[in-house]
Amino acid sequence: MKRKVYNFSPGPALLPADVMEIAQREFLDYKGSGMSILEVSHRSGVFQEVIENAEANLRQLMAIPENYEVLFLQGGASTQFAMVPLNLMKNGKAAFWDTGRWSERAIAEAEKYGNTQVLSSSRDRNYSYVPPLDLDKVSPETDYLHITTNNTIFGTRLSQIPDSKKIPLVADMSSNILSETYQVEDFGLIYAGAQKNIGPAGMTVVIIRKDLIGSAHELCPKMLNYQTHSEKNSLYNTPPTFAIYLTGLVFKWTLDMGGVSALEVQNRKKAQLLYDFIDSSSFYSANISEPDRSWMNICFKTPDGESDLKLVGFAEEKGCMFLKGHRSVGGLRASLYNSMNLEGVEYLVEVLDEFQK
Amino acid sequence: MKRKVYNFSPGPALLPADVMEIAQREFLDYKGSGMSILEVSHRSGVFQEVIENAEANLRQLMAIPENYEVLFLQGGASTQFAMVPLNLMKNGKAAFWDTGRWSERAIAEAEKYGNTQVLSSSRDRNYSYVPPLDLDKVSPETDYLHITTNNTIFGTRLSQIPDSKKIPLVADMSSNILSETYQVEDFGLIYAGAQKNIGPAGMTVVIIRKDLIGSAHELCPKMLNYQTHSEKNSLYNTPPTFAIYLTGLVFKWTLDMGGVSALEVQNRKKAQLLYDFIDSSSFYSANISEPDRSWMNICFKTPDGESDLKLVGFAEEKGCMFLKGHRSVGGLRASLYNSMNLEGVEYLVEVLDEFQK
Repeated sequence: MKRKVYNFSPGPALLPADVMEIAQREFLDYKGSGMSILEVSHRSGVFQEVIENAEANLRQLMAIPENYEVLFLQGGASTQFAMVPLNLMKNGKAAFWDTGRWSERAIAEAEKYGNTQVLSSSRDRNYSYVPPLDLDKVSPETDYLHITTNNTIFGTRLSQIPDSKKIPLVADMSSNILSETYQVEDFGLIYAGAQKNIGPAGMTVVIIRKDLIGSAHELCPKMLNYQTHSEKNSLYNTPPTFAIYLTGLVFKWTLDMGGVSALEVQNRKKAQLLYDFIDSSSFYSANISEPDRSWMNICFKTPDGESDLKLVGFAEEKGCMFLKGHRSVGGLRASLYNSMNLEGVEYLVEVLDEFQK
Repeated sequence: MKRKVYNFSPGPALLPADVMEIAQREFLDYKGSGMSILEVSHRSGVFQEVIENAEANLRQLMAIPENYEVLFLQGGASTQFAMVPLNLMKNGKAAFWDTGRWSERAIAEAEKYGNTQVLSSSRDRNYSYVPPLDLDKVSPETDYLHITTNNTIFGTRLSQIPDSKKIPLVADMSSNILSETYQVEDFGLIYAGAQKNIGPAGMTVVIIRKDLIGSAHELCPKMLNYQTHSEKNSLYNTPPTFAIYLTGLVFKWTLDMGGVSALEVQNRKKAQLLYDFIDSSSFYSANISEPDRSWMNICFKTPDGESDLKLVGFAEEKGCMFLKGHRSVGGLRASLYNSMNLEGVEYLVEVLDEFQK
């Protein structure tokens, strides 16, 4: 399907056109059942197949080893900020690589349940760079090291994953899961709100090494205990069935597109195209320098705030939506998640070029 | 639209056919925006209108007074089982009217955070009746009295709401919200998972008296603090946007149907039709007696378990889906939420009659 507009929203974001067409087609009558997938019990065979396929496809996409559980939960990354310490802080100590707003929030929640050690932070310059990390600072009794692989608001990306053999690495991958290849074995726990790269709002994927399950804080709410969901294959209570269905379709689409490695190639190309245009322009500028630049969220600006605002309006008229930067940064931001194709970025460059002229 | 099947699922359940048609029609292109409502930012004007309308319509449907907040959250009733004590248990004491599985779970969670007093329970006979409640047993320093207005699994309903002037009444209305008229002023807090009577799985409505907000436990996760969501009009983090949109359409539909009082008349009629048929039959029986019978979930059975199972298969062939009773009760159950029309119940009675012959 030809899109009428190109949607650069940071999230909830664009979904693959093919996925949306399938979902619309079977919206009222799922596979001839006479019912919508929205209307069937989560304990029915129909839904069982949906959730099992979703898990199997994600396992294939990320090559998730057997000793990891895949959970489909609710509450977004913001709930994970509390769930992680409530479940993993056995020794009451966690370390953080503070690279943005979401790292900050993860720290604030963890502080309620134990001691937090900020190993490194770029807060001094409004998170406009990825600060160096010295792993030797981490004491061995630390329960986990928390990182944010991509910072949606500030447009930065960790170009290197810490080689943390001593303590479990916990990664918030909300804004770049499935956009590039990671080795799941490098992590103790990975979480991601679906609404940026893999699905609609209202669902969170958690990938957790099994030995990290079962040591929750005594005051941990049952619903915030990974064990609850692990024991019941994410069906302890009614899960967000439609969000799981739709995310499952995106996983299938990702496989059909050639998997994560194929999309990574495309994502680098898309980002490079836009950064190259910005760097070659005397009108636009990007203040994040290589190698910290995000491939998902490209932050840039015109010479002044007034032109930034004018551009947002101009671009919308041309069908390029949601280019306004986050209020804590200002300027402009184009989010180029997996669902955005190269054609969309090429068109955006045309529109940006037209505006500067 | 004529349904191919009649769906008696206890939840996720049938949604109004008109609502589903609207949602399908605008699935790819919401109001000419060129984007799906699934793909727009929760901070966009487009979504702002959706959530504001949803709240306004719910306020109208339930005549919610100004001193109550309406919140759209995630995590289902199961998360509320912990949120309620984490937010309301200032004196560390809660009382319960134990009328089913969900009451039990609410008690189990509250026990983590304080003392629980079970005023009355029907656990002795597998929750097959609503036990009498003596409010004089409640001490005045009790933080809240928790009730479940309708018990989905066991097919019972509270025919009287406790006249609790002394302490805030907290009600789990997951399976009968908007099915009959309640006075919101009688409650301190009402919560309901959407997936039974008002929308899809993945969204929970909370209606809370404002003075009950702001006293959360010091270890309460930020996402489980009502204050977090109240201060940000349910937009502290990314909410389940599509579920809120769809629930908003159901609220609008409910208004168009004449509001709660009109649906209450219809719901009584539907339930009466089915109970009358069961009571007049020598083959079927319902073991819940008046006035404890649910209008939403009609539990019944044939003379033996084998026939129960046969009936489930027979009914499915005839297009009557999901009649199997909950595994902890056995037998049969037909859930007749707001979206099920009288015609569906009439057809079910025909099918049941055909089977007994």
